[in-house]
Amino acid sequence: MIIVMRPFVAEADLEAVTSLIASMKLSSHVSRGAERTIVGVVGITNDKDTLRAQFVQMEGVESVVPISRSYKLVSREGRRERTIVRLPNGATFGGEQVAIAAGPCSVESEEQVRATAEAVSRAGANLLRGGAFKPRTSPYAFQGLGEEGLKYLRECADRTGLAVVTEVLDTRDVELVARYADILQIGARNMQNFGLLREAGGAQKPVLLKRGISATIEEWLMAAEYIYVAGCHDIVLCERGIRSYDSQTRNLLDLSAVPVLHTLTHLPVIVDPSHGTGIRALVAPMSLAAIAGGADGLLIEVHPNPAAALSDGPQSLTLPSFAELMGRLAPVAAAVGRSLPAPALAA
Amino acid sequence: MIIVMRPFVAEADLEAVTSLIASMKLSSHVSRGAERTIVGVVGITNDKDTLRAQFVQMEGVESVVPISRSYKLVSREGRRERTIVRLPNGATFGGEQVAIAAGPCSVESEEQVRATAEAVSRAGANLLRGGAFKPRTSPYAFQGLGEEGLKYLRECADRTGLAVVTEVLDTRDVELVARYADILQIGARNMQNFGLLREAGGAQKPVLLKRGISATIEEWLMAAEYIYVAGCHDIVLCERGIRSYDSQTRNLLDLSAVPVLHTLTHLPVIVDPSHGTGIRALVAPMSLAAIAGGADGLLIEVHPNPAAALSDGPQSLTLPSFAELMGRLAPVAAAVGRSLPAPALAA
Amino acid sequence: MIIVMRPFVAEADLEAVTSLIASMKLSSHVSRGAERTIVGVVGITNDKDTLRAQFVQMEGVESVVPISRSYKLVSREGRRERTIVRLPNGATFGGEQVAIAAGPCSVESEEQVRATAEAVSRAGANLLRGGAFKPRTSPYAFQGLGEEGLKYLRECADRTGLAVVTEVLDTRDVELVARYADILQIGARNMQNFGLLREAGGAQKPVLLKRGISATIEEWLMAAEYIYVAGCHDIVLCERGIRSYDSQTRNLLDLSAVPVLHTLTHLPVIVDPSHGTGIRALVAPMSLAAIAGGADGLLIEVHPNPAAALSDGPQSLTLPSFAELMGRLAPVAAAVGRSLPAPALAA
Amino acid sequence: MIIVMRPFVAEADLEAVTSLIASMKLSSHVSRGAERTIVGVVGITNDKDTLRAQFVQMEGVESVVPISRSYKLVSREGRRERTIVRLPNGATFGGEQVAIAAGPCSVESEEQVRATAEAVSRAGANLLRGGAFKPRTSPYAFQGLGEEGLKYLRECADRTGLAVVTEVLDTRDVELVARYADILQIGARNMQNFGLLREAGGAQKPVLLKRGISATIEEWLMAAEYIYVAGCHDIVLCERGIRSYDSQTRNLLDLSAVPVLHTLTHLPVIVDPSHGTGIRALVAPMSLAAIAGGADGLLIEVHPNPAAALSDGPQSLTLPSFAELMGRLAPVAAAVGRSLPAPALAA
Repeated sequence: MIIVMRPFVAEADLEAVTSLIASMKLSSHVSRGAERTIVGVVGITNDKDTLRAQFVQMEGVESVVPISRSYKLVSREGRRERTIVRLPNGATFGGEQVAIAAGPCSVESEEQVRATAEAVSRAGANLLRGGAFKPRTSPYAFQGLGEEGLKYLRECADRTGLAVVTEVLDTRDVELVARYADILQIGARNMQNFGLLREAGGAQKPVLLKRGISATIEEWLMAAEYIYVAGCHDIVLCERGIRSYDSQTRNLLDLSAVPVLHTLTHLPVIVDPSHGTGIRALVAPMSLAAIAGGADGLLIEVHPNPAAALSDGPQSLTLPSFAELMGRLAPVAAAVGRSLPAPALAA
Repeated sequence: MIIVMRPFVAEADLEAVTSLIASMKLSSHVSRGAERTIVGVVGITNDKDTLRAQFVQMEGVESVVPISRSYKLVSREGRRERTIVRLPNGATFGGEQVAIAAGPCSVESEEQVRATAEAVSRAGANLLRGGAFKPRTSPYAFQGLGEEGLKYLRECADRTGLAVVTEVLDTRDVELVARYADILQIGARNMQNFGLLREAGGAQKPVLLKRGISATIEEWLMAAEYIYVAGCHDIVLCERGIRSYDSQTRNLLDLSAVPVLHTLTHLPVIVDPSHGTGIRALVAPMSLAAIAGGADGLLIEVHPNPAAALSDGPQSLTLPSFAELMGRLAPVAAAVGRSLPAPALAA
Repeated sequence: MIIVMRPFVAEADLEAVTSLIASMKLSSHVSRGAERTIVGVVGITNDKDTLRAQFVQMEGVESVVPISRSYKLVSREGRRERTIVRLPNGATFGGEQVAIAAGPCSVESEEQVRATAEAVSRAGANLLRGGAFKPRTSPYAFQGLGEEGLKYLRECADRTGLAVVTEVLDTRDVELVARYADILQIGARNMQNFGLLREAGGAQKPVLLKRGISATIEEWLMAAEYIYVAGCHDIVLCERGIRSYDSQTRNLLDLSAVPVLHTLTHLPVIVDPSHGTGIRALVAPMSLAAIAGGADGLLIEVHPNPAAALSDGPQSLTLPSFAELMGRLAPVAAAVGRSLPAPALAA
Repeated sequence: MIIVMRPFVAEADLEAVTSLIASMKLSSHVSRGAERTIVGVVGITNDKDTLRAQFVQMEGVESVVPISRSYKLVSREGRRERTIVRLPNGATFGGEQVAIAAGPCSVESEEQVRATAEAVSRAGANLLRGGAFKPRTSPYAFQGLGEEGLKYLRECADRTGLAVVTEVLDTRDVELVARYADILQIGARNMQNFGLLREAGGAQKPVLLKRGISATIEEWLMAAEYIYVAGCHDIVLCERGIRSYDSQTRNLLDLSAVPVLHTLTHLPVIVDPSHGTGIRALVAPMSLAAIAGGADGLLIEVHPNPAAALSDGPQSLTLPSFAELMGRLAPVAAAVGRSLPAPALAA
């Protein structure tokens, strides 16, 4: 941590700073420049925010600059090898093979889930996605089927060789959802629901953590750190678009987050082009771009009849258009040295 | 709702749209313009998002424009008179008198809360704020004293004539927090934690709903609608700054949200200049500006010794600087036809 | 400047950094911490961006943190006393008295300007605003009357005791506009039109510099530095709202920029609540808030018949509503120790 | 255009609206819904913003919704076939072959330009980029070599079979720059410098229009419309990253703008991953992603010695890393049915 003093700082103010550092069993290096005097703080501390806060408000201090990162365990410094998350059905995140999760936004009926699972499995997906608990902006919108939906997901996934990824919204439901899911999804709105992060991190299942709707990459990694500290080391990050000023797309898909994260963390990173754009016609080009840019997988909304979907129909692919996309993805993956999953069901 | 068809739309596509409208027991008005044909949808429906989604993906449809608002009960159309929220100690939000909540970010000790409560009560605050459950970006930071902290708040507030506002983070804690608080705070990170909104809305206490860190005003009002639908009609909205691209301040305080909300909703609106700026020196000017601009109250962080605070020290006022601010606020409130609370304790 | 090395940096990389520093006739302080080694760079340089760029890409360097600011002459360190900009008619920016500029978005006719000038002068404004050259998003929109408009402004202002503030868009027009204006306005879209900043800075007139539509405060001050370096020291900064993700208002008025700037620069700061909100009903509350928050003046759009305005009608006050606002502003200004101009024309 | 009336609107207000429509020789369709009455305006007008402004402020009007787009000539409705921009050396934007522009941020010396031109030509680029007039945030930074730089670009490009793309900043320099360039670049900071758009549009050269730093896609297309109206139909749009709240990257590269623009306009769209990220290590993955996502070309900063660059070194590729990137781009382009230019110089 570097403490930058104001120009023409009084010696007494400088001494107050170095005394406080000493009282914390940390050491300090004072450097007097032409324009500013700065104080380097040396030593290890985990709660950097609180430390920073104490110094920034002292007399004569202009700013405090953090030097090391607040996340430790999920950083590249915390672990040098890339994490590969493996699910029971063989799906992997972070290896040479990418993961493809596909399915409806909301679970609406057994028939809907079965038709989707069969089709996406044949087309080469290896995870089935679908929401049984839905976070809806409006209290008047469909809120999900709950446990009934989880059962449909589990049964249809098992029949088609897929793993299940599904969202958990409430600390009280973590145990229930973990009974059915292969990987627990924490949605964008809950990225900083810290109680939920802790519960999910303790549920003995991998966790897929979506980026908050306007989260910085550092905040996102701090949220992953909560899960890691709670005991779960199999974490997958999912970029799903952030808030922007332009209403042309539902969110602004930040594909550069993929290579940025690959330099900062050992965790795998996937992309959700459906929420990331909100527009069906953009899902295919952004899927191709994501894989070319290094994403470790995709999370795609697919529905047998998007026009009748109870949520997110406009951004859902039809079953044939998903299959067509998979056909276009394969050569792009190959061009960047990656491969798609082999279909569990014969096409 | 208006459905805008693409230029040169096929008659069959237009008919498919009007047929779907008819099948929903709604009626349609077709208007053929020089550049576009548009279809007006007439009738009442609550789940506008789902309806919109179904039309936007039909063949020949360019866009769907919502006409009426998605929030009903909290809108000016839902209730013509302004809501005034009254707490047991006489504090009111939304009347001629503004509400002033003051206190530490985190409850750290009984002594800290007692000193703060006495000082802010003498200075003219009528609510005591303080967090017993803290949402912290880092898992390594202080997470709050829990129920012990709630007890300190309640006892110190009772002794000094203040009401208690404190945050609840987890659905499992709503009942506990409601036992101690006069008004439950939902924080920015939980604005779209819909389960928590429902629980809080059913807790038989007023709710203070902070704006999400990048929430639109419409999303914010939809979150208030969740609380309203759950049974709580005494809702106070609190602007606390939104995410911006400039790092000069912690957040970007959106003071224009105050008059905007006054045109859209009957609910009172207060301002948190502490989180809204993150910088102690900006709290006073933004407090003055908020009251001049029509805010129904302020939520201000005050700490007996900000330099030793376990959270948010840099944006906390000291006890004397809070008292000084109250002295400067009074003439500004008077200049816009408002008044400050009368101190419960003699100064 | 602080150079932060990566963890476990090689000695050779560290030496390369210190050698480059030495070759620039600057000196370095190396500080080896528990997690990172950092190098402080000591010495004076003006082109910090280039310097930073050279180090940030060296082997073993993780980041480069600027310590001193890039703007010098406009900073509080560059000049300790607040600048007061004085116009020939006695209007001042930055003193105890605030400045009130009012008038139409576009100059449309002599009659329109005369009616507005008389009314706003009687109501207590001391500057007449109005655009003769208009930056319009659409090439099909009214682009302004040019020199004819400048003449109307000059004549009507002279007759009513007002100063003229008007925008210049093109380097080729600076001399022309400077012949008619008392203070040259650089609009938001041209905040980083550096050639125009240089020309305007050399025109021997004060300059009013609006904030760019998504400019950081630092970029804004760097733009002011361009004008200062070009010879103009009488610069007024004008906050006019920045881009946001919420479409409720045209722009997001950043009132906290006012006190932030007062800590960073000696230049006066005014607020444009008309562009800052885009909505007539918000102009009055945001004007009151701006003055309460410390603004040194206001720039307000006023039109004799907003419904017929060729631009920005929806955010323009009528002549009577402007007069009413002035009546409400006076007590707020007094409450914070400021005063409004005395009307040049008898009301 | 749709005019939405407030709930319970008075008949007189409704009539005032329809009368104004009639007075403009436009016709109106009134539709009375369960919650709102709406008025459709039918007829053709170019200046929609002004029209909208007049209605939005009438008594009883809640909002005005534009239906058709403000840009005409650059829209897909304005021209059904995709525009292919062809330069004298055979480079094309918008066809099956993508365009690759490479070169230094700033022209610094003849030697630098020559070395770069030879290397990028051998590696397969078909345009040479480089700035002779530089828009720099700081007045103390290097501002470019001016005409001398233009000469270096022209000579080196001619010798290596490349076309020249270079930025023009000032209306007074358009003619000069057009004498040397094959395609004139309008930079992000000047996207709404309307005088410059008009001059560049009249210069008888193709124009490359970068997106403004926080421009909406609609504003960007309106800027293109200015150039089109001024006579230039060979316009290339260039996404270069927009402002965001996260400082991990210099800008936030909006790759979804590519497919969005392909649905809205017939103009070709390229991507600048260098400014779009600001970080050398991100240039390659974002280049691959851009081509996979459908971009019609790339604009990449390349420098023989980035560590000594006078601007933007940290985001510049070295000559070998550019050649390596070209090798990785070829299979990705092939995977999406595109091709790279054939090198003009033998590698």
